[in-house]
Amino acid sequence: MEDRWQRLRELYAEIDDLQNAAAVLSWDQQTYMPPGGAQARAEQLATLRRLVHERATSPELGKLLEELASEAGRLPYDSLEASLHRVGRRNYERAVRVPPKLVAEITVASSQGYHAWLKAREERSFGPFAAPLKRLVDLQLEVADALGYEETRYDALLDLREPGVRTRDVAALFAQLKAELVPLVAAIVDRGAPLDDSFLYQPFDEQKQWDFGIEVLERIGFDFKRGRQDRSAHPFCTSFSPDDVRLTTRMRPDDLGYALFSSIHEAGHGMYEQNVPAEFRRTPLGGGASGGFHESQSRLWENVVGRSRGFWEYFLPRLKEVFPQLEPVSLDAFYRAVNCSRPSLIRTEADEVTYNLHIMVRFEIEQEILKGQLPVDDLPAAWDAKMEEYLGIRPANVVEGVLQDIHWSGAGLASFPAYTLGNVISLQLYERALADHPEIPEQIRKGEFGTLGEWMRQNLHVHGSKFTPAELVQRITGGGLDAGPYLRYIREKYTEIYRL
Amino acid sequence: MEDRWQRLRELYAEIDDLQNAAAVLSWDQQTYMPPGGAQARAEQLATLRRLVHERATSPELGKLLEELASEAGRLPYDSLEASLHRVGRRNYERAVRVPPKLVAEITVASSQGYHAWLKAREERSFGPFAAPLKRLVDLQLEVADALGYEETRYDALLDLREPGVRTRDVAALFAQLKAELVPLVAAIVDRGAPLDDSFLYQPFDEQKQWDFGIEVLERIGFDFKRGRQDRSAHPFCTSFSPDDVRLTTRMRPDDLGYALFSSIHEAGHGMYEQNVPAEFRRTPLGGGASGGFHESQSRLWENVVGRSRGFWEYFLPRLKEVFPQLEPVSLDAFYRAVNCSRPSLIRTEADEVTYNLHIMVRFEIEQEILKGQLPVDDLPAAWDAKMEEYLGIRPANVVEGVLQDIHWSGAGLASFPAYTLGNVISLQLYERALADHPEIPEQIRKGEFGTLGEWMRQNLHVHGSKFTPAELVQRITGGGLDAGPYLRYIREKYTEIYRL
Repeated sequence: MEDRWQRLRELYAEIDDLQNAAAVLSWDQQTYMPPGGAQARAEQLATLRRLVHERATSPELGKLLEELASEAGRLPYDSLEASLHRVGRRNYERAVRVPPKLVAEITVASSQGYHAWLKAREERSFGPFAAPLKRLVDLQLEVADALGYEETRYDALLDLREPGVRTRDVAALFAQLKAELVPLVAAIVDRGAPLDDSFLYQPFDEQKQWDFGIEVLERIGFDFKRGRQDRSAHPFCTSFSPDDVRLTTRMRPDDLGYALFSSIHEAGHGMYEQNVPAEFRRTPLGGGASGGFHESQSRLWENVVGRSRGFWEYFLPRLKEVFPQLEPVSLDAFYRAVNCSRPSLIRTEADEVTYNLHIMVRFEIEQEILKGQLPVDDLPAAWDAKMEEYLGIRPANVVEGVLQDIHWSGAGLASFPAYTLGNVISLQLYERALADHPEIPEQIRKGEFGTLGEWMRQNLHVHGSKFTPAELVQRITGGGLDAGPYLRYIREKYTEIYRL
Repeated sequence: MEDRWQRLRELYAEIDDLQNAAAVLSWDQQTYMPPGGAQARAEQLATLRRLVHERATSPELGKLLEELASEAGRLPYDSLEASLHRVGRRNYERAVRVPPKLVAEITVASSQGYHAWLKAREERSFGPFAAPLKRLVDLQLEVADALGYEETRYDALLDLREPGVRTRDVAALFAQLKAELVPLVAAIVDRGAPLDDSFLYQPFDEQKQWDFGIEVLERIGFDFKRGRQDRSAHPFCTSFSPDDVRLTTRMRPDDLGYALFSSIHEAGHGMYEQNVPAEFRRTPLGGGASGGFHESQSRLWENVVGRSRGFWEYFLPRLKEVFPQLEPVSLDAFYRAVNCSRPSLIRTEADEVTYNLHIMVRFEIEQEILKGQLPVDDLPAAWDAKMEEYLGIRPANVVEGVLQDIHWSGAGLASFPAYTLGNVISLQLYERALADHPEIPEQIRKGEFGTLGEWMRQNLHVHGSKFTPAELVQRITGGGLDAGPYLRYIREKYTEIYRL
């Protein structure tokens, strides 16, 4: 039996090494690769992913998992072996259900979809993207059917990203959010005169922005001995081991928040990855529990901490040393400026009040498409209509509308709910952390982030991906997913900022 | 039969993708990886290399090569298929002769050797490196015995790097070189007062050094759409495809030549890689013919071109724009300064006259070690004695003596001859290029490098690694390896510079 566990570990170590090698290649592709490298890189990644898929679906792995099932069943649920077996078997069963041919077709269609998306954006027309997107949707339907589901095909795809979370759970959260956020957005708009945040948009030396960002990340707890930050067109976080976590950001020479908050966001993901225990290395238990839980960390640090008054009580004086032109700006004015809320067209630049409405637009559209209720060709019109309904504004063109996100151009349906789950969970966690440590806000005012960071490590990060999102929420909060804490937070914060 | 060739291509494509993935991981390890990433990266690389070795020795590959042998034998020698088969079979036969256990032992011993070498350098003592080096030497002897050889074990190891080149060929070159270079070094030393090159060692802004270096590389023909340059502790060139070639360099804030000539050197390697035909991609015919041929390109551009009077006739005015402090320096003074020759201790900083003597020291020592004539413990004394004999100077410590090179700390015995082969071949090629295009020197004076670059592409680079070094020399020059052109070049150049 000992030998079998050992062999299982070896199989997973190899899969993990190959996945991490692919992650390095992908990181390089997005940070440093010269344009000429694209074709060979696509081939190299395809080969690595094929080898991963072969191993993840190998009969040897399946047999081992079966042989170890009864022993694993006798071990404590949260033991390393039982978890390794449970998560391993879940991954295996999923992987073998999707035929290799379908996997290969998706790889090709994703690449075509991505290039068509770029072309469509360039031409500012949905046209070139329509047929490739239809193809991708058809393949996603096949995946859903191959995986199986209880209620809707969306469930099958969502389960890949948020194990055990059902579409109806997400829909319930959105109903809760919509009821409160739509009127709140309207109230802020009605309040008239927007906040003055013009001082955030003046020339800021890029190197100084970069250095200040690094200083902030070090302070909040990202370990640069076990990670680094580079530039890329779209910010992301990836990790090759808990001891090698890569963040990226991008900069604008006349927009202070653009790089900074994205850096803090990615560092939130990064600290999660860095804190996963070493014993999970080279197993399927590494990384975070789900997309939603990952977003709970990035959005916690970006928004709940990074846009809090206490955070800037500490950092604003330091920022003024770096950028003396901010000298006249008061803490209150700065705090309000970085929390300025206004209906806008681009999700990634949306504020905390409007952000979830952007996600809701996508979530609803994805469901209608998968149900066959919305033809792909009608997507732009449906998008604009929903933006109008929830945010009161319409895109002037498809680039700032339906073509703004990269997600649908790949295989990525059902990936958007993670953002809203993240917002919701971040406040469920933060409320618990505050209950355990009421001193956290006072510490943040002094630039001390250790208690909060350590709480997240001990209560969330140490579990890696051992548990499902529902198990984790239960374990940490004693209950289920609940938008209540998030809505309380938004209500309080924005009522005060906008004097509603 | 068509299917078999197709399958052969598939097997090689997979091997090549895995090798290139490993190359990306290794590049990252030396350029951007944070310190914490070391352990996981070593594991990832070990897995990729194991998978490569499994594939490179697979019975399926062996069987295919055998089945295709008679058809390949009927095809023209230089056809793609015949070459693919010939080079593929050579690689296969080599790979299967070395038992996997020995390969694994070398991997471990290399890692231990590298760390022991670092420690020994830190302690400035050969002691910590002695036992690991003995172990590495023993393993190299096993490799030589496994591979087989006609005359000496050194032949077997040399053949891995310079297919078909024998130790006696290299020894003959060194005899030719030694006879002329040792007296030349002495004559330069006797000439007394060294040249003034002090103006090369003053503060030079690093960003400006970097930008000037890039400008030079673009001008000589390195294609930055299909490559890039980064920083690393030790400069190197690696490629992930002909369309993605990476150079690295390092800088000193008060040494103008340190980064620049190393950049030009690596770009020489890089242009070779970039010019390998696309049809060789994902086959064993990519890359260069051998270490020696690769060095012929890097040393051609670094020295024969980059340290020529004509090169600086074009670039010195531009350099003075970038660094006005050089305004008073005449072309003649600058040319003489960048060719200043003096016996020195560090190979990588040696000039063209003394460089090959550094290599000769290593070549002779390696042979004596492999023959069992020189115990590893006596290495430092032997090193110092040879430095005294050939260069007239002795290292003050092992860091600037026997521990200066990384090569022996890995599996790298018999890799040094490539440098001298490179010097020798660079002039054999350059003489041919000049015979075909006498206008090349005049073009260089005008900053036009296209004719020379294109000659190298058409006569050397297009062959990738189809031919052995001896075949290539024969094909290009009509003769064999010959130090004559190199010695003529050195004699003329240095007689003039030192007014001998």
